[in-house]
Amino acid sequence: MMAADPGQEMHALVERLYPLCRSITGDGVRGTLDIIGEHIPLTVHEVPTGTQVLDWTVPQEWNIADAYVADATGRRVIDFRESNLHVVGYSTPVDTTMPLSELREHLHTLPEQPDLVPYRTSYYAPAWGFCLTQRTLESLVDGEYRVVIDSSLTDGHLTYAEHVVPGRVTDEVIVSCHVCHPSLANDNLAGIAVAIFLARELAAADPHYTYRFLFAPGTIGAITWLARNAEAIGKVKHGLVLACAGDAGSVTYKRSRRGDAEIDRVLEHVLRASGRPHTVREFSPYGYDERQFCSPGFNLGVGSLTRTPYAGYPEYHTSGDNPDFVLPESLVDTLAVCREAFSVLDRNHRYVNLSPYGEPQLGKRGLYDSLGGRSDAKQAQLAMLWVLNFSDGEHSLLDIAERSGLPFDSVADAALALQSAGLLKE
Amino acid sequence: MMAADPGQEMHALVERLYPLCRSITGDGVRGTLDIIGEHIPLTVHEVPTGTQVLDWTVPQEWNIADAYVADATGRRVIDFRESNLHVVGYSTPVDTTMPLSELREHLHTLPEQPDLVPYRTSYYAPAWGFCLTQRTLESLVDGEYRVVIDSSLTDGHLTYAEHVVPGRVTDEVIVSCHVCHPSLANDNLAGIAVAIFLARELAAADPHYTYRFLFAPGTIGAITWLARNAEAIGKVKHGLVLACAGDAGSVTYKRSRRGDAEIDRVLEHVLRASGRPHTVREFSPYGYDERQFCSPGFNLGVGSLTRTPYAGYPEYHTSGDNPDFVLPESLVDTLAVCREAFSVLDRNHRYVNLSPYGEPQLGKRGLYDSLGGRSDAKQAQLAMLWVLNFSDGEHSLLDIAERSGLPFDSVADAALALQSAGLLKE
Amino acid sequence: MMAADPGQEMHALVERLYPLCRSITGDGVRGTLDIIGEHIPLTVHEVPTGTQVLDWTVPQEWNIADAYVADATGRRVIDFRESNLHVVGYSTPVDTTMPLSELREHLHTLPEQPDLVPYRTSYYAPAWGFCLTQRTLESLVDGEYRVVIDSSLTDGHLTYAEHVVPGRVTDEVIVSCHVCHPSLANDNLAGIAVAIFLARELAAADPHYTYRFLFAPGTIGAITWLARNAEAIGKVKHGLVLACAGDAGSVTYKRSRRGDAEIDRVLEHVLRASGRPHTVREFSPYGYDERQFCSPGFNLGVGSLTRTPYAGYPEYHTSGDNPDFVLPESLVDTLAVCREAFSVLDRNHRYVNLSPYGEPQLGKRGLYDSLGGRSDAKQAQLAMLWVLNFSDGEHSLLDIAERSGLPFDSVADAALALQSAGLLKE
Repeated sequence: MMAADPGQEMHALVERLYPLCRSITGDGVRGTLDIIGEHIPLTVHEVPTGTQVLDWTVPQEWNIADAYVADATGRRVIDFRESNLHVVGYSTPVDTTMPLSELREHLHTLPEQPDLVPYRTSYYAPAWGFCLTQRTLESLVDGEYRVVIDSSLTDGHLTYAEHVVPGRVTDEVIVSCHVCHPSLANDNLAGIAVAIFLARELAAADPHYTYRFLFAPGTIGAITWLARNAEAIGKVKHGLVLACAGDAGSVTYKRSRRGDAEIDRVLEHVLRASGRPHTVREFSPYGYDERQFCSPGFNLGVGSLTRTPYAGYPEYHTSGDNPDFVLPESLVDTLAVCREAFSVLDRNHRYVNLSPYGEPQLGKRGLYDSLGGRSDAKQAQLAMLWVLNFSDGEHSLLDIAERSGLPFDSVADAALALQSAGLLKE
Repeated sequence: MMAADPGQEMHALVERLYPLCRSITGDGVRGTLDIIGEHIPLTVHEVPTGTQVLDWTVPQEWNIADAYVADATGRRVIDFRESNLHVVGYSTPVDTTMPLSELREHLHTLPEQPDLVPYRTSYYAPAWGFCLTQRTLESLVDGEYRVVIDSSLTDGHLTYAEHVVPGRVTDEVIVSCHVCHPSLANDNLAGIAVAIFLARELAAADPHYTYRFLFAPGTIGAITWLARNAEAIGKVKHGLVLACAGDAGSVTYKRSRRGDAEIDRVLEHVLRASGRPHTVREFSPYGYDERQFCSPGFNLGVGSLTRTPYAGYPEYHTSGDNPDFVLPESLVDTLAVCREAFSVLDRNHRYVNLSPYGEPQLGKRGLYDSLGGRSDAKQAQLAMLWVLNFSDGEHSLLDIAERSGLPFDSVADAALALQSAGLLKE
Repeated sequence: MMAADPGQEMHALVERLYPLCRSITGDGVRGTLDIIGEHIPLTVHEVPTGTQVLDWTVPQEWNIADAYVADATGRRVIDFRESNLHVVGYSTPVDTTMPLSELREHLHTLPEQPDLVPYRTSYYAPAWGFCLTQRTLESLVDGEYRVVIDSSLTDGHLTYAEHVVPGRVTDEVIVSCHVCHPSLANDNLAGIAVAIFLARELAAADPHYTYRFLFAPGTIGAITWLARNAEAIGKVKHGLVLACAGDAGSVTYKRSRRGDAEIDRVLEHVLRASGRPHTVREFSPYGYDERQFCSPGFNLGVGSLTRTPYAGYPEYHTSGDNPDFVLPESLVDTLAVCREAFSVLDRNHRYVNLSPYGEPQLGKRGLYDSLGGRSDAKQAQLAMLWVLNFSDGEHSLLDIAERSGLPFDSVADAALALQSAGLLKE
């Protein structure tokens, strides 16, 4: 199942998904989920237009076949077939002719990044428009232009999908990726690719928690999922919003609203212990779908993992965020961070020392180097002493690892050895 | 009502109040309150000698008509008419002749500041004395001196006054100034001048809290007020002791005993956010009347605002603390700090998000820029997201401003907009 | 009673105790307690082999008369009579001849410290062995060697002793020293010497707490004491494990497991206030008998005082830890730290201000300099104001000393003066 070179395989997936014209509804999302479903089984949900979801309403479904602006000679000066970024997302249909002066009000450029096409949408206010480079705009001559957007806004569905890796307990960890951006590679095809590979690895690892992967359009998708799973939210103990997972920058972890949720502690520990350059940020109510999971009514322990964070790079939400902007080695590294973090999270239990009065005699249980006096006491024995001393039901193994300065793996191994010897219970 | 140049007007008030011979009782206090009363209406209280106030007793009233030391030629070598600092406050009456050797025991100088007259009192132990410069002392020749203090200590009253600016709620903010020092300008005529102007501004501002201004002699005055208002103390939610409000130094805020009272948080926020050079100090049980408001039985949220703090400048409690030591621009700046602080305090409420599950849809309420995707999200929209996310009944607007790094005004404006839209309640 | 030169007297005691062959049981411990008993009265406990103590069992008693390895000429190449470190502690008896190749498996050296003999034991796994310098090992020629260890392992007793200095209250402070190491001077004859002198000083000082000194073998001794005193543990409010008290290094205090126990606060305050170079370390579950007192079931407020800490010097657990390694001035300094700490601990009470509303009038009680206005307010008066303001039943005198920056002695003296004046109660 696993690729010989996961970085290349993830990158290939980003390239394959790149051309699809995704939005918050429509066939672009469905096509994306079809491709994801080739790698991991998905449960796809279709939620009808008009469904009330929390404070929102599922909008009409948007689809688009073609769009262009053509000059008097019929030449397409702006062409959807070249890049789906050229059309403002959710543009209403249009088929008319107008002078450039009037058309200008519908044209969006980035004057300070004259070679890039911006990404723009107008989901909830009916509008239409085109995005183009500033250089193209400057090359347009006055005159009449043919303007065509062959789109439809009709009652339909909002589409999202779930993939579940069952664990030994029903408590859940949610991993969420937005799937609503058209041709933007890092944001968020990179996150999707990492999530797929992570799901496959977890399935092979017999995890403690049940891991639920959510592939849904941003904002309205997370809100729809939350609205439809209100009674099951209590099972969600931890979560991670994965986005911008493939650029060349170092890793950024953004804390949950709680700030000291277990997922926060785990990610910070793993990033610090790994020696990776990284940044930890406080929660803020803008960014990706952590906004919804961490709204005050839910206040879930959900953090956000990116490389360069939300809106933090010049190529953000432009045609510069193309597959060349995503590096295979960055995808591999983001995947490794997730793997390491969930490995700690899965083992981060609180134990109780069953022999808490004085130290138990490890020697008679075969757990101690019998010839005392060596100044180079072994790490495994130190780990056992730390676990015994702090397993009072209050300190987790992560607490003990951080307090002792010992690697989490040593601490977790010590706990298993002590549990086997009957000295510890969970 | 407001002066064209409030700094000059406040300074003129300091100069006018300067010559009066104030003490903890007597006509100097009454004259001072008369002048304050020309600017803001006062309720004056007269509390009879002998009244038990907490652990203390209102002392006899002290008044003084004249005092001097004259040499053998009749020349006044120390003269109360030149400066009321020349007489030790609460000096008992004396009219006698004595040699310099005996007189010396009653003379107070500052040998290390030979040109300054010290300020001395003996409120609760019967004594008399004169204060003079070291240079004058050194110029006195041996011989007999006529010594006259034409003072009286009689049963009378302790006098203090209150001015109340009614607010929309009856919860109170107390602003307290000591009025017991004779010819000392910064300590505390400057505080009195700022308090008067602050009271006039607040009255024009329709404040949330009721603001109570207290003009009372130090220690015994605050103790008397506390003793007489024991049942109303519960209404005092915040307070500020204003002193040394006009010297050239930067602003110092001294925290309440609680250390994290709302007034502490507000003053620290305002000083930091304003960019002013300033100092924040922990509470200590010496200084001005915060000692009484913050005694452990009351433990009120009362801080102290000065420029150079209590006993922190060489001119402190000497004839060097004269009107020249007080700068109009310092008075204006202290007034501005109070204004800014109370503006924040008045708006620093805790709100509850009425749509706490997921983000509410701001667009349908006209609160959101509909064309998404702009990387330069506007501050007003950010402020709304922050207010919505943290309005859980626990976080105040100040908490949200500090956590978000947004200006308090933006956060407060966002709260008003969201409240108008029905998304927030107080 | 007290020596003219306590440093020399303590050092002489270290030298006298040095040659005895101590272990966790046996006549070496008894001989050590006999010498301690010449200085302070001891209650000696003998606990039979096989007694269950917490998770452990009192082992057989070990004694040794002689041991050596002799070459073919009969010359002792390793000789117990030169140093008891040459025999692995708890070695089983042996009397045989074997070639060097076979003997090597029983020989312990320190290759990186070729002139030092290591200290080794095998308490709970039957074994025998010799310790020697790497240089001696390298000088041994192949051939047959006579190997003799004239030891015995028989049912007997574990021996430990207590000395109690009665206080004004029955709440106890425990001072614990391990007495199980053979010829190692700093570890722990130095601790024993300091404990003896400390006990004599405390007896002369009429202490508040009852001080219990425990002289017991490491680990099994503390565990035995804890097992036999389970019902009295509640009386142990504070404690200090004394070890490595005489090397040239500066003082190290290792916190109790609680981390903020009163003993932790006191030691840190005393070390900081004294200006001594020192180190404070967090608790860790290895070191001396704080491991047992701070096991999670007991979790006592017991810290550890050493100079260079456990296993922190090259001479640790080698023949380099001889009386020359212990300095009289270090013993004197460690004793002084204990004296200063217990002096603070004994006075560190929480008081309640009986006049908490406003400041009480100190002047009418003779506690205040009546001529107000002096800028150089005296430290004693400041201390009274601090004690009055923070004596709310929550703040201890140490809290007040630290918050005020005043010396603990000033704060404690102020509390006594205020208590005498009826303004404070404990």
